[in-house]
Amino acid sequence: MPSSPKPDLRIGLAGLGTVGIGVVKIIQRHADLIAARTGRRVVITAVSARDRTKTRDADLSGYAWETDPVALARRDDVDVFVEVMGGHEGPARLATEAAIAAGKDVVTANKALLAHHGHSLALAAEAAGRVIRFEAAVAGGIPVIKALTEGLAGNRITRVMGVMNGSCNYILTRMQNEGLSYAEVFAAAQALGYLEADPNLDVGGIDAGHKLSLLAAIAFGTEVSFDAVELEGIGAVSIDDIKLAADMGYRIKLLGVAQMTGRGLEQRMTPCLVPADSPLGQLQGGTNMVVLEGDSVGQIVLRGPGAGEGPTASAVMADVIDLARGLRLPTFGQPATGLTRPVAAKTATPAPYYLRMTLLDKPGALAKIATALGEAGVSIDQMRQYGHEGVNAPVLIVTHKATRDDIDHAVGLFAGTGVLVGAPVVLRIEAV
Amino acid sequence: MPSSPKPDLRIGLAGLGTVGIGVVKIIQRHADLIAARTGRRVVITAVSARDRTKTRDADLSGYAWETDPVALARRDDVDVFVEVMGGHEGPARLATEAAIAAGKDVVTANKALLAHHGHSLALAAEAAGRVIRFEAAVAGGIPVIKALTEGLAGNRITRVMGVMNGSCNYILTRMQNEGLSYAEVFAAAQALGYLEADPNLDVGGIDAGHKLSLLAAIAFGTEVSFDAVELEGIGAVSIDDIKLAADMGYRIKLLGVAQMTGRGLEQRMTPCLVPADSPLGQLQGGTNMVVLEGDSVGQIVLRGPGAGEGPTASAVMADVIDLARGLRLPTFGQPATGLTRPVAAKTATPAPYYLRMTLLDKPGALAKIATALGEAGVSIDQMRQYGHEGVNAPVLIVTHKATRDDIDHAVGLFAGTGVLVGAPVVLRIEAV
Repeated sequence: MPSSPKPDLRIGLAGLGTVGIGVVKIIQRHADLIAARTGRRVVITAVSARDRTKTRDADLSGYAWETDPVALARRDDVDVFVEVMGGHEGPARLATEAAIAAGKDVVTANKALLAHHGHSLALAAEAAGRVIRFEAAVAGGIPVIKALTEGLAGNRITRVMGVMNGSCNYILTRMQNEGLSYAEVFAAAQALGYLEADPNLDVGGIDAGHKLSLLAAIAFGTEVSFDAVELEGIGAVSIDDIKLAADMGYRIKLLGVAQMTGRGLEQRMTPCLVPADSPLGQLQGGTNMVVLEGDSVGQIVLRGPGAGEGPTASAVMADVIDLARGLRLPTFGQPATGLTRPVAAKTATPAPYYLRMTLLDKPGALAKIATALGEAGVSIDQMRQYGHEGVNAPVLIVTHKATRDDIDHAVGLFAGTGVLVGAPVVLRIEAV
Repeated sequence: MPSSPKPDLRIGLAGLGTVGIGVVKIIQRHADLIAARTGRRVVITAVSARDRTKTRDADLSGYAWETDPVALARRDDVDVFVEVMGGHEGPARLATEAAIAAGKDVVTANKALLAHHGHSLALAAEAAGRVIRFEAAVAGGIPVIKALTEGLAGNRITRVMGVMNGSCNYILTRMQNEGLSYAEVFAAAQALGYLEADPNLDVGGIDAGHKLSLLAAIAFGTEVSFDAVELEGIGAVSIDDIKLAADMGYRIKLLGVAQMTGRGLEQRMTPCLVPADSPLGQLQGGTNMVVLEGDSVGQIVLRGPGAGEGPTASAVMADVIDLARGLRLPTFGQPATGLTRPVAAKTATPAPYYLRMTLLDKPGALAKIATALGEAGVSIDQMRQYGHEGVNAPVLIVTHKATRDDIDHAVGLFAGTGVLVGAPVVLRIEAV
C-alpha cells in the first residue's frame, strides 16, 4: 500500500547571483533525483532580485517574480525562504525576519547576517516553530555544519579550526609558491574577481571570522559572539616571513581557532604558523579546510571548495533537502533559549611564537634580545641569525610555549635594548 | 510555556567490547550534554555480551543483563537496538532481525552484516516503519554516511573513493617510511593487535570492500552489492614497488573506488598508485580518508580515525542522537523498495597503469616489450630501466590511459617475447 504522496516543498528564492542561479540549476536538473531522495518534489515558486532585466544563466520563466524580497518571504505559496542575497542589514535581514514572522523555514548562505543577528533570529524562529539552516554560510560545499551539529553530537567539542577564506589562502599560497609580495598577489586576485567588492571582508579576516563565530556557537552551545573574535587580516604578512617560516618547516595560514577554556571562549582569526606537513599546512589555493576536534572522536579534517556556484548551491540544497525530508533541528543545534552567553577569554591559550626582527650588527645585540626574553619569562626553542651584507642582521626566534602577554612584555623590553631596527613581527604557531 | 518533556530514549546495547564500552562511557559522561542537544535523556536500559564475568572498563551495574542478544532486542524497555558485536551471520544477524520485527530502530557498527544482508534488512526495517543507521560501519569516527546521504544530497554523486582500512594503510606507510618488507610489517601489526583475528579481513581488502559497498549503495541509489566488488588485498605489494612508485612521485594505497559508468557500477578495492602530493597520497598510518565527488560540489575530502573505542563510539552516538532528535531517514538514504539492482561493470574505467618487470639483459629486450605494448594498443608515458649488476634488468613502465583488457593483452604478449623474467607487476594509477 503506497503512502499518500507528500506535498511539494515550495521554495522562494531571494537572490539570483552566482549562488542563486546554482540553486535553480540543481532544482531543475535533479528534480527526479531529489524526489527519489526526499519522497516529494522540491519546486521553486517565486524568485526575487534587484534587477529583473539582467541576463541570467537559467530559465526563470516558470517562477513568479517579486522585486521586494520581503514580499517574496511572505508569499502564501512559499514554504521555505532561501536567502542568497548577502549583507547583514537591509533587505537580507528584513526579508529573513519577515519570512520567520510569516511562518516560513529559512535556508541562508549569509554568514554576515547570522554572525551579527544569529541569536535573535534563532530565538524568533524558535518562537515561531520554524528553523534556520545555514550549511552554505560556512566553508562553501563542505558539509561542516552538519558534521559538527550532528555527526559529532556525541562529543564535547574541544577545538574547531579552519582555513575558511579561499581568497586569503589563494593569496598566501601564491606568495609562497611564486615568491611574490602581498601587494602583487592581492592585485592579481582582485583583477581575477576573487575578492569581495570590499576586499577587507576577505583579507581583513572578517568573512572568515563570521564563519568561525557560527561554528563556535554550535560547538560550545553559546550565543553567536562575532564581536569577541580576535581578528587580524593577512595584509601585514610579508614574503620574508613566508620564506623564513617555510625554512623552519612551517606555512603561514589565516587560521581560525575556537576553543572553550577555563578562561572563557577563545575565538581567533589570525595569521598563524602551522607545520608544513600537516593537512592545514598542505592546503593550497582557494580550497577550504575545517578541523573539528572532539573528546571521543579525536580529530576530523574536512576539505573542499569554499566558494563558487556549484559548491555553495550544493550546501544550500543540502539544507533544502533536509527540510524536504523532515529533518529539523534548532538553528545552532540546541534550543536558542538554552544557549549560554559566552565569556570571552581575554588571552589566548599559550603557544609557541615566531618572532622576526632586525638587529643592529653590534656585539652583544643578540644577547640583549635573549636577556629580554628571559626577563619576560619566555624561553627560546630555536634561534637563527641569517647572513647579511648591510649593518642590520635578520634574526628569527621560535619560542617555547608562552602567553601572548609574556611575548608582548618581551617585545616591550626589546625597545629598551637599543639594538632593534623597526618593530618585530610576532606570529603564533598553532599546534594542529 | 515549556513543552512537555520528551520521554527517554532507551538503548539496548548488544556487545561490550571496545566499541560497546565506548558507547557506555559517552552516554554516562555526557548525559547532560546529550540532553541539551536532543531535548531528552538517552539512557541504556539493558546490555548483552557473551561473558558476563569479564572485567570491563565501565560501570554496568545499572543495566539489565541479557545473555542472548535476541532477547535484548525484543525487550519492551528498549527503543533502539545498538549492535556492536560484529559478524555477518549468527547472533548479530538474528538479533538485528529480531529487533526490527519487534519494532525497534537499529544502530549498528556492523559493516559485514550490512554488506551481506543490508538490502533485506533495509526492506524489513522499512516494512516495520523502523530505520537502520550505520555511521560507525564506515570509516570509524568520520561522519561520512551523513556527509554522503545528507550533506551532498543535492548532487549526483560521480565517484566515491577511500582508504578505509587503517591497518592496511599502517602497513603500507610503515613499509614506505622504514623500507621494510610486507612480511615484517604484517608481523609487527599482528603483534600490536592491529589486525582482525582473521587478518585476511583486513589485508585481503574484505573489510574495506564491505565499507565501499555501503557507500556505493547510498551514492548511486542501488542495492548493496558487495559480491560485485573487485577485491585485491595488499599481500602482494612489495617494498620494491613502493620504492619505485615513490621514485616516480606516487604512493601505493589500498584504495576503494566506486563509480557509476555507462557500463554499469564499478566497485574496486585494490592496491593503486596515487600522486604522492594528493591528500590520499599524503595519508599516513592508521588514519582513514574518504573522498566524495558530486556534480555540483566537486570534491570533498574527509579525514579522521577509522577505528578505536572513542571514534567508533562517537559515530554510534551520532546515530543514536539523530534518533533522539527525531531525524529519521531510510537506511540507504531513499526507500529500499526504490533502490535499483546494479549492473556490475565488467571492466574498470581506463586509467594509466604501472608495470614493473624484469628483463633479460639482452639487446632488443626493451624493444620487444615496447612492441608488445604497441600491438595491444597501449601507449607508453614513461619508461625507466634501472641500473643493475646481474643479468636481469629491472624495468618500469607507466602507460597512458588504457583499459585493463588491453593491459592484460599486452602482458599476455610479453610472455611470447622470451625476454621476461617472472611475471610483471601491474598496478592501476587512480586519478585522485
